[in-house]
Amino acid sequence: MKLIENWFSERYSDNLQLSFRVKDQLLSVRTDFQRIDLFETFDFGKLLTIDGTVQLTEYDEHIYHEMITMLPFYAFGIKSDSALVIGGGDGGTATGLLSLGFNSVTNVEIDSQVVEVSKKFFPNLSSAFKDKRCNLIIDDGIKYAKNSKNKFDFILVDSTDPEGPAEGLFSVEFYHSIHDALKEGGVAVTQSGSPLYQPKAIKLANSGMKKVFKHVYTYCCFIPTYPSGFWSFTMGSDSDLDFQKDVRHGKYFNSEILHGALKLPQFVRDMIE
Amino acid sequence: MKLIENWFSERYSDNLQLSFRVKDQLLSVRTDFQRIDLFETFDFGKLLTIDGTVQLTEYDEHIYHEMITMLPFYAFGIKSDSALVIGGGDGGTATGLLSLGFNSVTNVEIDSQVVEVSKKFFPNLSSAFKDKRCNLIIDDGIKYAKNSKNKFDFILVDSTDPEGPAEGLFSVEFYHSIHDALKEGGVAVTQSGSPLYQPKAIKLANSGMKKVFKHVYTYCCFIPTYPSGFWSFTMGSDSDLDFQKDVRHGKYFNSEILHGALKLPQFVRDMIE
Repeated sequence: MKLIENWFSERYSDNLQLSFRVKDQLLSVRTDFQRIDLFETFDFGKLLTIDGTVQLTEYDEHIYHEMITMLPFYAFGIKSDSALVIGGGDGGTATGLLSLGFNSVTNVEIDSQVVEVSKKFFPNLSSAFKDKRCNLIIDDGIKYAKNSKNKFDFILVDSTDPEGPAEGLFSVEFYHSIHDALKEGGVAVTQSGSPLYQPKAIKLANSGMKKVFKHVYTYCCFIPTYPSGFWSFTMGSDSDLDFQKDVRHGKYFNSEILHGALKLPQFVRDMIE
Repeated sequence: MKLIENWFSERYSDNLQLSFRVKDQLLSVRTDFQRIDLFETFDFGKLLTIDGTVQLTEYDEHIYHEMITMLPFYAFGIKSDSALVIGGGDGGTATGLLSLGFNSVTNVEIDSQVVEVSKKFFPNLSSAFKDKRCNLIIDDGIKYAKNSKNKFDFILVDSTDPEGPAEGLFSVEFYHSIHDALKEGGVAVTQSGSPLYQPKAIKLANSGMKKVFKHVYTYCCFIPTYPSGFWSFTMGSDSDLDFQKDVRHGKYFNSEILHGALKLPQFVRDMIE
């Protein structure tokens, strides 16, 4: 008889938390940038947190990764030549891009430890890092983007929230850098947080990208292990939408979500207009 | 200095729970049918639970109530004459229907205590019960529907989950009753649970209504205080969709959500096809 239950709780505010019962804590490490913890949960498989915030779980990471890669890809008809991922040290975004047929994926992650943890505990998710088409660079994505000109068809900002190390990834200056790092008509996308609990992220991303790109769209999806269960992404380009007809589906994304995710609830609409 | 914190937790499974910090418990009563608790929370205002399950909170009830009333109303162009609400003892659904202009709303709730609690603690939400256009009947909705023929333009099943007292509200026999209680071409809608945590509800509702109605559609929305944050509704009619152009928006629902909510993620699509 086991008398002790272990739970990991993420506090969404002082007054609200989601708790996962865990079988075991597999890792806890403080890196130069942040604290990384890894749990084996009962309901969601392995769960990775950074600074106490759920980054991904084995059972629902596909939603985030499909939505950050497939939706912009099919909404703009992006050329599957060269992509840049900023952040995304778990490898899920890079792996998604390779499976969409990208010839070259550059992944710039600031914290090598995130990569090492993912390689060890999420081998499928991080499989891009073993692929010749993927070039992993451990460096500051802001600096890297600033020094890149006219190089990428697709830039994906797969960051933590706009507090702490990722704050600069929500600045207008950074959006100028990624604009200039894109080839003409290229597309940038950033995760932009929970509309309910992180209005700052969605407002910074949407208003900041509008200062730089001709066309900016915010879209949403459901992610059960992220705060409020509801998440946003914001994408921008100087080209406009060009919805593709021939769309591969994932476990969450499909040709319906390609259109439906862009249709926003009124309270989200009010935040970005 | 307050040393004790009080929390209400809803267990979504043995291994997952969402917890709300509460200022006070305002009520706890066992009725003939179920247990009702009411908390004053920090983040969501008043929170009503039935048998330990969140039914509504002051701050996000509008999402559920807008989505169960407005979406079918504008998607089918329902005549705003007579509606029947089964369950919905908090009054939110009836109040929503009155604000859409319905001339007559019959609300059949099995548990008078739910009505009393809502009248006392949610006076705005339950305001329909003071309106002459609303006829509140304390009775078994299954029996009531069975005895009604060709009477309503719109029937809304605003029930708890398909376990316990509400189980019969997910049966094919019941769907036959509401089909026959509708006027020709009328529309029925039922809440059909969290696609992630209550696959039984969505499957029963969708497959059951398809046995009875010519056209059946499931749609989804985001509700932060319900399990997984993601919720479904299923609606059926012998008429097909007739999307209205002139659409009033709520705080969540708008003319975009009218179309977007019907566009389902692949895993939901797979459950109902």
